[in-house]
This record gives sequence, C-alpha cells and structure tokens, in this order.
Amino acid sequence: MKRKDSAGTQRNIRLIVAFDGTPYCGWQIQADKETVQGTLTAAIEHIAGERVSLIGSGRTDSGTHARRLVASFKTVSRIPPAALVRALNSDLPPDIRILSARVVSPSFHARHSARRKIYRYQIYRGAVLPPHLAREHYHYPWPLDVAAMQAAAPQFVGEHDFAGFASKSGSGRDTVRQIYRCELKSAALRLVLIVEGNGFLQHMVRNIVGTILEIGRGRLNPGDIETIFHKRDRTLAGPTAPAHGLILMRVVY
Amino acid sequence: MKRKDSAGTQRNIRLIVAFDGTPYCGWQIQADKETVQGTLTAAIEHIAGERVSLIGSGRTDSGTHARRLVASFKTVSRIPPAALVRALNSDLPPDIRILSARVVSPSFHARHSARRKIYRYQIYRGAVLPPHLAREHYHYPWPLDVAAMQAAAPQFVGEHDFAGFASKSGSGRDTVRQIYRCELKSAALRLVLIVEGNGFLQHMVRNIVGTILEIGRGRLNPGDIETIFHKRDRTLAGPTAPAHGLILMRVVY
Repeated sequence: MKRKDSAGTQRNIRLIVAFDGTPYCGWQIQADKETVQGTLTAAIEHIAGERVSLIGSGRTDSGTHARRLVASFKTVSRIPPAALVRALNSDLPPDIRILSARVVSPSFHARHSARRKIYRYQIYRGAVLPPHLAREHYHYPWPLDVAAMQAAAPQFVGEHDFAGFASKSGSGRDTVRQIYRCELKSAALRLVLIVEGNGFLQHMVRNIVGTILEIGRGRLNPGDIETIFHKRDRTLAGPTAPAHGLILMRVVY
Repeated sequence: MKRKDSAGTQRNIRLIVAFDGTPYCGWQIQADKETVQGTLTAAIEHIAGERVSLIGSGRTDSGTHARRLVASFKTVSRIPPAALVRALNSDLPPDIRILSARVVSPSFHARHSARRKIYRYQIYRGAVLPPHLAREHYHYPWPLDVAAMQAAAPQFVGEHDFAGFASKSGSGRDTVRQIYRCELKSAALRLVLIVEGNGFLQHMVRNIVGTILEIGRGRLNPGDIETIFHKRDRTLAGPTAPAHGLILMRVVY
C-alpha cells in the first residue's frame, strides 16, 4: 500500500511556459548555468516552500525559444493555480512567463504523456536582418531554390529512422520517429518550416533545416533524404542550423 | 556664386535605418547618453573619416522603435553606397541596421523633405505578455470596449489643432497637423493602431493612443476628442501611452 501521509495531499500541477531562450543554456538544469528549468524550479520552490522536481515536455537547445512548453510538478502546497501563475510571473524574469497553471491527474507526466510536438524554424533571406526579427530568425541572405526546398520538406513526413539527422547516434528503434507534418512556407523574405512529430532526437529539427537548406543551395538533392534515412549517417545530412531560429510552438497530450 | 572647392565634391547620402529602440534614449544626439543618432553619427564618421551632420526624418522617443527611419548626411568621402551599407552594419551594434543607402539630390533633407510619416502602436490584451511580444507591445490586460475605440480612431483624421495631444504646448498654426489615416485593428489579443500624418508633435501618437484607451475604458467619450481639439487642453486627453509600443514604420517623401 502507498504511503498516504504526504503523497495523499500532493497535487500534480501542469504549467504552460513561454520563454525567450536567448540568454539561457536551454531548458535542462545544469550546475552553474542559467537554464529555464533551473530558473523556474527556483521560483516554484520559493513560492511553494518545498523542493520540487520539475518535469518538462522535453529539452530545448541553448538559445531556442518556446511559445507553449508544458511542465509539471507535484507539490503539497495549497496555492490555487491562478495565484501560482501570478506569483511565478512576479518572481520570474520577464523572458520566462507562465501562461497558465492547472491541477491535473497524478498520472500526468509532462514528458512521458506528450504525444506530439510542433516546432517552427524561421529564416530571414533579406540582405540585412531587421533588428525586430534578429532574436528568432536565422539570417540566410544567399540564393536559395525555395521551390526545391518546399518539394523536399514533405519527404520527412512518415515513420523514419532519423539516426542520420540526430547529433547523438542511437541504435535500432531508438531513433525511429513519426513525423506528421513538415511544411516550408515562403512569404516575402521569410521562410518558416513547421514540423510536427511524435518526438524529436537531439538537434533533429535543426538538422532537418540544415539539410533542406543544402537542397536549396543545390548541394544535396531531394533524393538524398531517403539515402540518409537508410544509411543512418549524420555526415551525409546538412549542418545543424542555428538554435535561435527554432521555436517549440506547442505540445499535444 | 557658391563655394565649389569642397562643396562641389560633396555627395548627399540617404540612409534607411531600422532600430530596436529598447536600449536607446531616442534618436536625437545627447551628451553622455546612448542615442541612435549619436551611435550612427560615430559609425559614419569612423568610416567616412570626416565629421558629418546627420539629419533624421524626425526625433523618436526614448524606447521607441523604427522599421524605416530616413536619415541623410553630406560627405566628401567616395565610398560607394553598397560598401557604405556593409561597412556601417559591420561597425554598428546589431540593434541598429542600415537597410539601404543611396546618393540623392543635394536639396534632399531627411527632415524638411518628409511629407508623411506612418506610425504603428501595438497593444497586447492577454493576461500574460508572451516574451516574444514584450519589446514592442504595451501590455494592457484590463477590459476594453474595442468597438468604441475603433469608432473613435477615425475622428483624428483630417486637419486639426493637436495642441491638446502634444506634450509641449505651442500656439496658433504651430500645432496644426493633417492626419490621413487613424485606424485601430483588432486581431485575437492584439490591438494595432496605424496613424499616418504630415507631421507629429512631441508624444502626439502616444497621447492619441492614451486617449483612445480612455475611451475603451469608458472614462472619455468619443465626443471628447472634438472638445480637446477646440480647448487645446492637454489635461483633458488621456495619459501618454508607453514608448515601447510605438514603431515608426515609414517616411514618405
């Protein structure tokens, strides 16, 4: 039988978190580094008055942003969710914001329960990068065959072994992921890639972007994507695109 | 007859400048303060190797942004415009960018020749301000009658004495301006006011925004705008809206 004395009074709280990743070494807590998880854990512990274990929907890279990352933690504190949102936002720096908080089932786990994630990668193609776009756009002012890139993007859709698009190699089914959508939109001088999948390996979106850019430059062919899936060889894919163009848009449960 | 020896070799250069105004005390050069004009003048002098007098299309307030401010200066340096753009952008901080440079007629004067200016003011109405909107949106999470605000905005269109909407009082024709467009757009949780006019008094757009917000709160009536035009009394209008929601979008010559 479970211990009930404190566990029985614990609530599981689900947060929606937005952040400007520019000054942070990513989500994951690290000693002596500013991270979103570290900053947010400290704020929660300050308010709840107890140690908490904060679970994020997944890691984000250093410099990458989030519009609606999901995080969860268990607490015996009785603070109502709306008061928690206000208290956290007054404690946190303005570049991390809690958009909402609610009590969820004890079985909810921000990482394990996540079914889909939607990422966005932004590229600015003009000769000079306007300051208001600088934080969230990769500046790529060189010629690109956008039609070839747009034709290549949907090739990532489906169940594939993404070992060749991961920065750490795995084996077997570890590196298989399902992609539901991979679409490149072009408007004026901006390119926006939307990628939706059931999970992502380290640097996977940024490596997909780097590969699509190589196709746009004519250094890779659309057919090379299939080859990289089969050969599982990271060196065949394009370089990792910079982190600051990447935004975690949403997590679906 | 004019002096020809050096004046004859001078070129008049027109720049289009974008900046994130957050860290600057506005456009206008000031001793011991970081200003856009001061920073840009120093960069031009560094590259041209001579003192220049940089003329802006107009002042901007401390913290206000610009997408396409126009500036001009005369120089005997022979650097081609495209090389000047590259040299300035490599010298300037990333929050000030030169979008283009070209040689214009000696009679062109960035301030005197300006015929129209287009400003944009951005308000975010949601409970929590997302970090990616924080630099360029005024956070106003309280109830507003948006329909009343949208009906009031066009009342600013036409030739009016804006003394009551200026932060420094003038007399007679000094404070008369022509407004061509004043439109409030509402989409999701954002309000965007577009104002186009032949000139603007100090804080005029921000005071128009503050007045429209008071109408949205029910503390002023749409009819009060006409009264403020006639009474020329700044104390009757709304408070000055914060500078960081304001963006100079374009200057027409």
